[in-house]
Amino acid sequence: MTNNIENLRVNGQRLWNSLMELAQIGATPKGGVCRLALTDLDKQGRDLVCRWATEAGLTVTIDKIGNGFLRRPGKNNTLPPVMTGSHIDTQPTGGKFDGNYGVLAGIEVVRTLNDHGIETEAPIEVAFWTNEEGSRFVPVMMGSGVFAKAFTLEHAYAATDVNGKSVKEELQHIGYIGAEEPGAHPIGSYFETHIEQGPVLEDNDVTIGVVTGVLGIRWFDCTVTGMEAHAGPTPMALRKDALQTATLIMQEVVAAALRHGPNGRGTVGMVQVFPNSRNVIPGRVKFTIDLRNSSDALVDQMVAEVKAFAQKLAHTTGLSVEIVPTSSYAAQGFDTGCINAVAHAAKALGYSQMPTVSGAGHDAVYMARLAPSGMIFIPCKDGISHNEIEDAKPEHITAGCNVLLHAMLQRAGVHQT
Amino acid sequence: MTNNIENLRVNGQRLWNSLMELAQIGATPKGGVCRLALTDLDKQGRDLVCRWATEAGLTVTIDKIGNGFLRRPGKNNTLPPVMTGSHIDTQPTGGKFDGNYGVLAGIEVVRTLNDHGIETEAPIEVAFWTNEEGSRFVPVMMGSGVFAKAFTLEHAYAATDVNGKSVKEELQHIGYIGAEEPGAHPIGSYFETHIEQGPVLEDNDVTIGVVTGVLGIRWFDCTVTGMEAHAGPTPMALRKDALQTATLIMQEVVAAALRHGPNGRGTVGMVQVFPNSRNVIPGRVKFTIDLRNSSDALVDQMVAEVKAFAQKLAHTTGLSVEIVPTSSYAAQGFDTGCINAVAHAAKALGYSQMPTVSGAGHDAVYMARLAPSGMIFIPCKDGISHNEIEDAKPEHITAGCNVLLHAMLQRAGVHQT
Repeated sequence: MTNNIENLRVNGQRLWNSLMELAQIGATPKGGVCRLALTDLDKQGRDLVCRWATEAGLTVTIDKIGNGFLRRPGKNNTLPPVMTGSHIDTQPTGGKFDGNYGVLAGIEVVRTLNDHGIETEAPIEVAFWTNEEGSRFVPVMMGSGVFAKAFTLEHAYAATDVNGKSVKEELQHIGYIGAEEPGAHPIGSYFETHIEQGPVLEDNDVTIGVVTGVLGIRWFDCTVTGMEAHAGPTPMALRKDALQTATLIMQEVVAAALRHGPNGRGTVGMVQVFPNSRNVIPGRVKFTIDLRNSSDALVDQMVAEVKAFAQKLAHTTGLSVEIVPTSSYAAQGFDTGCINAVAHAAKALGYSQMPTVSGAGHDAVYMARLAPSGMIFIPCKDGISHNEIEDAKPEHITAGCNVLLHAMLQRAGVHQT
Repeated sequence: MTNNIENLRVNGQRLWNSLMELAQIGATPKGGVCRLALTDLDKQGRDLVCRWATEAGLTVTIDKIGNGFLRRPGKNNTLPPVMTGSHIDTQPTGGKFDGNYGVLAGIEVVRTLNDHGIETEAPIEVAFWTNEEGSRFVPVMMGSGVFAKAFTLEHAYAATDVNGKSVKEELQHIGYIGAEEPGAHPIGSYFETHIEQGPVLEDNDVTIGVVTGVLGIRWFDCTVTGMEAHAGPTPMALRKDALQTATLIMQEVVAAALRHGPNGRGTVGMVQVFPNSRNVIPGRVKFTIDLRNSSDALVDQMVAEVKAFAQKLAHTTGLSVEIVPTSSYAAQGFDTGCINAVAHAAKALGYSQMPTVSGAGHDAVYMARLAPSGMIFIPCKDGISHNEIEDAKPEHITAGCNVLLHAMLQRAGVHQT
């Protein structure tokens, strides 16, 4: 039997077909998907996934925030399940793979075990988490966040979309408020397969990213205030040009990231110039700062350096520089056992692999607070995601799912018959 | 008589009162003026100025673009007039002095000559030029531009405001289309008094700016194109951050101005970042470049340096940098005779003075194409203009008008009785 297990492979074509079928719900003309959380289209997507689960013999449990748990019993059902999952809601101009891949890879693992009549020691579960994207309702990663008690069910229920519809109303409307209390569901360990949403794997021509953790994030709004004046009559020496001072801080954001490599990241994504007129020296510039690194200590060091630079610059230029924090997310390392399970599976399967970090948040970040967790990344074309042209190769889709299968089997244990 | 002429002074209080009275038409709650070109308020302002002219014994001629010429005969009326003028239209949130001061200073010169029964050799004229500001209709400096044949009367007539009303319609509506062909009006020499609209005189604590010329201007739109990507999953080494490259060019715009002082000026006033989202690396940044200097050779050298810098940067970063010209205004030096007349008058009157340049365009730029011309600047508070808080000191208003009086008399010649 041991030999059989090692040779076990998922049905990549079946997984691909399921991905393409689910992508028809909310399909956009440009080949993407628009299936916002808790819309009628989201209901159709959930219904399809639940039908597939039932057809695969899984029991379906929905909790009060609409998270779905699709369970395959094990030999020993007193053990907590080995869980995998992700989300099936998408961005307004999302792709076919973000989230959906993680859920359907879980279904494909179950189908493969069924095909070969394999019983695991611990139960297997596939989860789909409500409103991971946060496009329609804030906060993001809502279902997994409530599950992990990062915020309360009431807080999530009260969130409204731009039309004033609440999460609770919309959950009721689509019929996905279950009876189970979020978090009342034990987890033995948790894996999530996901497209990388970045360019690293493709750039290194590697199939499997063994994710060691998720970067800590610090967000700020920076405002530089000088003096608005006419571009013509004001000589250089008498200017208080807010934009020129701002550009130095923008460059320091990147410099701080480069000083704290390999995982330091610094981005200025949004800039507003006032009054933003061709022949007026900017009196005020507001811009965002996004700093990330693999540990909270590293990212906090970057923050301190950018702040010190800005303070010194304010002193030398006489302009006012204000840096106000807007959000902060702690770095989250994954469990060594889960990381090793992924790396071992990839090696045994003969896939190229590299350790990598996730720069973006995932439901796995919250799961890591509750149970040993890990993630499996596969390359996506040009690193592009949250875009209708998001794409991934079938062989990578298959490879990631094979790694998931063997990592889950390693954690769940196979009942030797 | 010579002694009398040297001691001649304008009535500063009367000039100030006229400025305050004209400023009531279109007065804003914050103390400014909103009297856009060719509106009913502009008509009221024109009517008041023409009434004052008539009361001062001047004849009023209006040309086809609505420019007004208020004439005081000389001893020898075959000589072309010594003209002064400016405009009385304002910005939407304009002040009391911009333009209006130049016109009413001319009226005050005439009133002073009348008070003392002084006859000039050449005639004296006061002009008000249509739509200098360009707030409602483009191009700016419209009346003087048509007069100097910088563009045609038909082109100006066809310009429309945001509501689709044309210059011709609105001139007819307010009754200010005259019979005279624009430019069919000879000019012996031209002076324009104006608030500086910059901080140099105030910063140097000087009363009179002897304007030697108007800076040449080159305007460009610069677009840097990189690759939009998610701030989280994209490592620094794999980024094509359009904003970071743009900030280097923005700094070069200022550096080029500093390398070509004292009159080099470089401004980035407007910036647009795409997609302008906090956690997305900018894929494209569009910004304006405004370069100025006292000669066309100098400003063209600045342009060449900025372009070379951008080209080199495009090469080293692999990003695309496009710099497209949008407007160009030639530098305009003023006439040595007129400059000397202003400097001599200021000296004789005992006012502090300094040579200065105008960084902004004025009607005098177009007049300088037709006749020997000069300008007189006085300080304005904090260098602020095009703003309701625009302000100037009564003693400076009086001083500038006294300089205008004596410069005009020097050029017109006083008939010795």
